[in-house]
Parts: sequence; structure tokens; C-alpha cells
Amino acid sequence: MSQADRWMLPEGIAEILPADAKSIETLRRRLLDLYHSWGYELIIPPMVEFTDSLLIGMGRDVDLSTFKVTDQLSGRSLGIRADITPQAARIDAHSFPRAGANRLCYAGQVLYTRPRSVHGSRAPIQIGAELYGVESLNADIEVISLMLETLVAGGIEKIHLDLGHVAIYRSLAEAAGLDAEQQESLFALLQSKAAADIHRWVTENVDDPRCAQWLRALPDLAGGSDCLARARDAFVEAPAALEAALADLQRCADALARRYPSVELFFDLSEVRGYDYETGLVFAAYTPGHGQALANGGRYNGIGSVFGRERPATGFSTDLVALNQLGQDAWEEGGAILAPESDDDTLWQAVEALRHGGEVVIAALPDGAESEVRSRCDRELVKRDGGWLVQPRG
Amino acid sequence: MSQADRWMLPEGIAEILPADAKSIETLRRRLLDLYHSWGYELIIPPMVEFTDSLLIGMGRDVDLSTFKVTDQLSGRSLGIRADITPQAARIDAHSFPRAGANRLCYAGQVLYTRPRSVHGSRAPIQIGAELYGVESLNADIEVISLMLETLVAGGIEKIHLDLGHVAIYRSLAEAAGLDAEQQESLFALLQSKAAADIHRWVTENVDDPRCAQWLRALPDLAGGSDCLARARDAFVEAPAALEAALADLQRCADALARRYPSVELFFDLSEVRGYDYETGLVFAAYTPGHGQALANGGRYNGIGSVFGRERPATGFSTDLVALNQLGQDAWEEGGAILAPESDDDTLWQAVEALRHGGEVVIAALPDGAESEVRSRCDRELVKRDGGWLVQPRG
Repeated sequence: MSQADRWMLPEGIAEILPADAKSIETLRRRLLDLYHSWGYELIIPPMVEFTDSLLIGMGRDVDLSTFKVTDQLSGRSLGIRADITPQAARIDAHSFPRAGANRLCYAGQVLYTRPRSVHGSRAPIQIGAELYGVESLNADIEVISLMLETLVAGGIEKIHLDLGHVAIYRSLAEAAGLDAEQQESLFALLQSKAAADIHRWVTENVDDPRCAQWLRALPDLAGGSDCLARARDAFVEAPAALEAALADLQRCADALARRYPSVELFFDLSEVRGYDYETGLVFAAYTPGHGQALANGGRYNGIGSVFGRERPATGFSTDLVALNQLGQDAWEEGGAILAPESDDDTLWQAVEALRHGGEVVIAALPDGAESEVRSRCDRELVKRDGGWLVQPRG
Repeated sequence: MSQADRWMLPEGIAEILPADAKSIETLRRRLLDLYHSWGYELIIPPMVEFTDSLLIGMGRDVDLSTFKVTDQLSGRSLGIRADITPQAARIDAHSFPRAGANRLCYAGQVLYTRPRSVHGSRAPIQIGAELYGVESLNADIEVISLMLETLVAGGIEKIHLDLGHVAIYRSLAEAAGLDAEQQESLFALLQSKAAADIHRWVTENVDDPRCAQWLRALPDLAGGSDCLARARDAFVEAPAALEAALADLQRCADALARRYPSVELFFDLSEVRGYDYETGLVFAAYTPGHGQALANGGRYNGIGSVFGRERPATGFSTDLVALNQLGQDAWEEGGAILAPESDDDTLWQAVEALRHGGEVVIAALPDGAESEVRSRCDRELVKRDGGWLVQPRG
């Protein structure tokens, strides 16, 4: 590598320069303050852990996404986190166990071996909240509400919320008696939303005519508010778990419509996520003109069991960098005050007082054009009658 | 690894739980606001880069400290940063070049392959500030001042500041005609502060009697304010670079004594740092009862040259976690308000209004004892005459 290109960054790994950094930091604080006001307590998990602790039945995607190094002290494999959720689950299960509800939030960089979309980032700043210990649908509604408030705080004006429930596919696959391999095949077809292929596959693999009909109905059951009514018609006498899932979706949609009337609700009953640790309601928020989900989450009960404590869990997360980019309020740097070069002790006192009062004061320094520093300063400190005055710069 | 111990963390890698996390977050904001008020602009560099960009002539220590992985996209080596300073230097040199002074600050986790002291952390949160483009001693004084303000803001009451200057040893070694290998041997002896060994080594290796005398004087030239006067006596007719270094130390000490009269100043003229990229004034701050430096820094001119732009540079950094631990103000969680379970829309409005007003409102949720959540709440929302009132909890 020649010296000339040592400044290059790896593909998908960005550095954040002052204007964006300031705006991301402002948003970060606003969001952590929001979570705090809802009773969510901040945790700061480390950026590496034993790989065994990070990959806790969350599927091959996370495994492949995770960089691994060897720990020189223990000889064991360390993973650089690709997701903070397993760390929060570990903390809820072991380090910070609460009886009943445990509300945790976090913000930190994560790293992927490969971007998750074309030109996607490999180093997002994941910020999110998790609610442990509560099985009730009210916990899901709370978490989805907080996700929506996150986007509103991020300046996103048009929000589409997609709701799904993994029990719908799971209960149908079970009723149809699909084995693990079959479930995986159909799962893959559903992910690609290939209706014709799904029809053919179901005809070939599912004998029970009622189950076949239900499975064939699945890919069409996506859309706006009529979707749940159509599902109730399509799934007459379907498994109880499916009916309960539909009822949950309805109750959740009703509560959210009351709280956030401007959010558009969509349903996708064949929704099956890339990360296969979800166990109940799943949700993702979009904004028009941006193909990727801006934030997503879901219920993932039982994740704590690998740490010795099985707990209900639901949560969401978003990428602070992407959210800041999409929702960015034009952030204006306020003008700074230039302090002249001087050893005068009264100048130092004047400068410190201004800084404590919230002003930005930049000290003039010798050697070299300070043109850009000076361009940040719209005022300057000037000595008058033995004291220091702030005056506009000419 | 059995499921029972999957919650374990690697040695020297800690997670930060809510009470500490809240206090660290508060301190982080206070410090970034402080740097902002001095004109330092925030940057957020990524936690990995090409290893070539991270290891820029900063010596073998940083190389050994840096975890490396292979980038699947480029096939090249990536390093997990063990220091943010080279990233800031890269940004000053290339991504965010300013004419004249460039003031940058940052806060983020770094990672070491091995702890730097017994029971030391391998995952500190490095926070610091760097000032590029200014050769003048005033830049060093500004950076040291900001380091001291950092410790004051962190609640450190007794501060000892150690000042040194690498030109002192360097100019003597040059005058004595030491070759690279000899410089390294003497460097190692000076680091271990072994006066008798140093005397013997000098007798064996240095012919010029004046140079030998100067080098022998070096280990004794450490201590309080009389140290610089003793040095001026010891180094009569010494190289000009050494005399200039002594003058810089004196001017710096005078300026700091005026600004921070309660800070105790110490000098160590044989100071040679583990990281050998410093080129001028070096400084470290201590507090009684804590053996490690709480914060340190120095001048490291020329670091940008590997990125194609040689620039004067001086800066400091500290570990936010350690600083928070030592200076910790007892942080008191204010009481929260419990909101009852209810679908009442007026309750939702009351809750949102309280949260926007800065209160923490925790929603009661069904299933499971919420004893600990309830113990965080000293007040509750109660319905009275169709409206919602906040009342103390009995």
C-alpha cells in the first residue's frame, strides 16, 4: 500500500466528519433521553465478546456477519458484535436480572463482514431498546410505540409500519406436518414472495387440502387495513395459534392507530425475517423513497435460555447513521467567538466565563493561516477600558 | 462451552450496567460539550480500518495491541483500533483538511489484545482532543488546559501534572553520537529509571565527557518546580534544542500555574513514552492513590505525512470509564412515575406530556411481578374527575 492511499477506508466502512457527527450526536442524545423518559435504562456492552455468547441460536446470517479473532489471553474465539440484541439478552439474563419487566437501551457501533444490501454500511451505529420479562401484547405495543417515537424524533415525517406475526406461518407449517427441511424450502420461497412457485410447491408437498389452501392464501395476505379481515375469512377453522396471532395483530393495530393516526399500517402475514429468532409479533418501519427498513424488531422469547434464564423479550433497533441521513434537520453551526492571542489573565477569565455560558470560544494561535478557524467566528473578544467585550467581527 | 458459562466475558473486557452507564453517558456529554465550547469539532471514526492506516509509525506497542482480521471484500488486513489518534490524524490530513488550525475531538471504544497494566481494561472508552496545524507552544498549552478541564469536569479534585519533553533525551543522544541500537538500549534503561545501570552504561558507551555528564544527570532531573532550575545548571552549553525545550517547559509551566493554581506540577526530563511517536512536549495527569496516568498526551508532529500531508499535531486522551470510576459524583436516579394499565386515550396524552416535560414514566404491564420497576417509581398517575393526576405512591 503506497503512502498515497493509506487514507482509504474499507468498502462500506465510513468515518463521520464534523457536520454529520454533530447532528448524529444530537440525535443520539435525543433518542437516549427519549428511552430514559420511558424508563429504559442505558447499558454499554463491549464491542467484542466470546463468539459463543454472541451467536446464540440467531441463525447462520449473524454467524456469517460476525468477524472473529483469537483471544491471546484465553485462546478462545472472540466475535466483534454484529448485533447488540444478544448482548442485551445476556445482560438481562445474567448481569442485570430484574424480577418482572426489565427495560434496557443501548447505542453503539456494530460491524458486519459483508454489507446487508448493495452499497450498504458495514459499520452502522445500532441504537435500540429491549423489553424483557413481559409476555403480554402490551409490551409489544410499548416497544413499537417507542420505535415510532424514535423515527419521529429523527425527523421522519411519513412512516409506514409493517406488522407480521411468525406464529402464522409456523402454525400452518405445523398443521401441514412439514418437516424441518420442507419448512426451510417453503420459508425460502416465502421470503422471495414468489407466489407461483409457492403454489406449485404446496401442491407437491402438502396433502391435506385445507392446509394447502391456507398456505396458498398466505402470499396474498399482505396490504392495508383490509388484510386482517381477509385473513379471518381465509383462515376459518385454522389452528388456534393462528387465530390468536390475528387477534394480536388486530389489537396492536388498533392501539397504534389511536396513538399514531398519521402512521400508515401494513400487514404481511407471510412475513418471515432473515434472522430466525423471532417468536411472535414482528414489525418494521419504512419511509417512502427508501427501500430498506429504517427500524425493525420483534418478539424473541426464550433467547435468555442459553444464559440460564428463559425470558419473554421484545425490542427494536435502528441505524443512527441512516436515520440521521434520512431525517436530517438542517443543522446550523452557531457562530463562534475569536479570542485574541494574549497572556492577559483577565482574557482567560472572560473566555472561560463565555464557554461556561454555552458559547464556543476559539483561541487565536500563531503560525499559519487560521483562515478557516476565523471563518467560524462571527464575533471576537476586544479589550475596552481594561475589560473584555464581545463584538461582531468586521 | 456449557450454556451455564456463556454469560462470561473475556478477561479485561467489561460491560457497563445502568448505574455506571448513566453516569458515563452524563460525563461523556459534559466532556464533548466542553470540547465543543473550545472549538473542537466531533468526529466519529469507524472501529476498524485497514491495518496500514492504523499503524503509522507509532511503534511496535500499537502493532502488538491491535487485533487484526481479514477483510472478506478486499482480502486485506483490517485492524480493530487500539487508539483513535491515528484516525484523527488521517482525517486531519485527508478527509477534513483545514488551512491552519484544525481542532478535532472524539469518544469511542478501543480494543487491546492485551491489557496495558495488571488487571487493566482491554476495552477502554477513549475520549480526547487533537489540535493540528499549529507549531506554537500555545497549542500545547491549550491542549494541556483542556486535558486539565477534562479531569476537573470528571470530578477529580487533586491533579498532578507531569511535564516532559522528548527533545531533551533526543538532543543529548544525538550530541553523544549514539547509534540507533545504543539509543534503544539507553531508552530502555531510562524507562526503567535504573540510575546505577544508566551511570554504568554511559561510562561504557559515551566518550565525550560533557555528554556523559549530561546523560548521567538525566535520571535525577525529576521533581517539583526546582527541577527546571537544576536542569539549567546541569545543562550549561548543552545543545540548542535542549535549551529550547527547557524554555518551552518553563513557559508552559508558568502559563498553567496561572490558569490552574491548584494543579501540582512535576517534571521528568528523562520522560520517554511507550509510544514513540511524540516529538516535543509530553504530559500526563495523575491523581493520588491511582498509579496509572488518568490522561496523557503530547506533541506528535509529522504524523500526517503517511497520509500525504505533514502537519504539526498535539493532543491528549483519557479513558472515560476509568475517569468516571475515580471521579464519580454519586449519581442519583430521580424517581419515576408509574402509569397504570389502561387503554384510556387521555392517560396516553398525560403520559406523553410528562415524558416531554422531562419525567420518567414507566407503564405498568401485566404478567409477572414488576416489583423492581415499581420500586423505581415514587409517584403514580391516578384518575381524578376525568383527568390524570400525579400522586406520591403510598
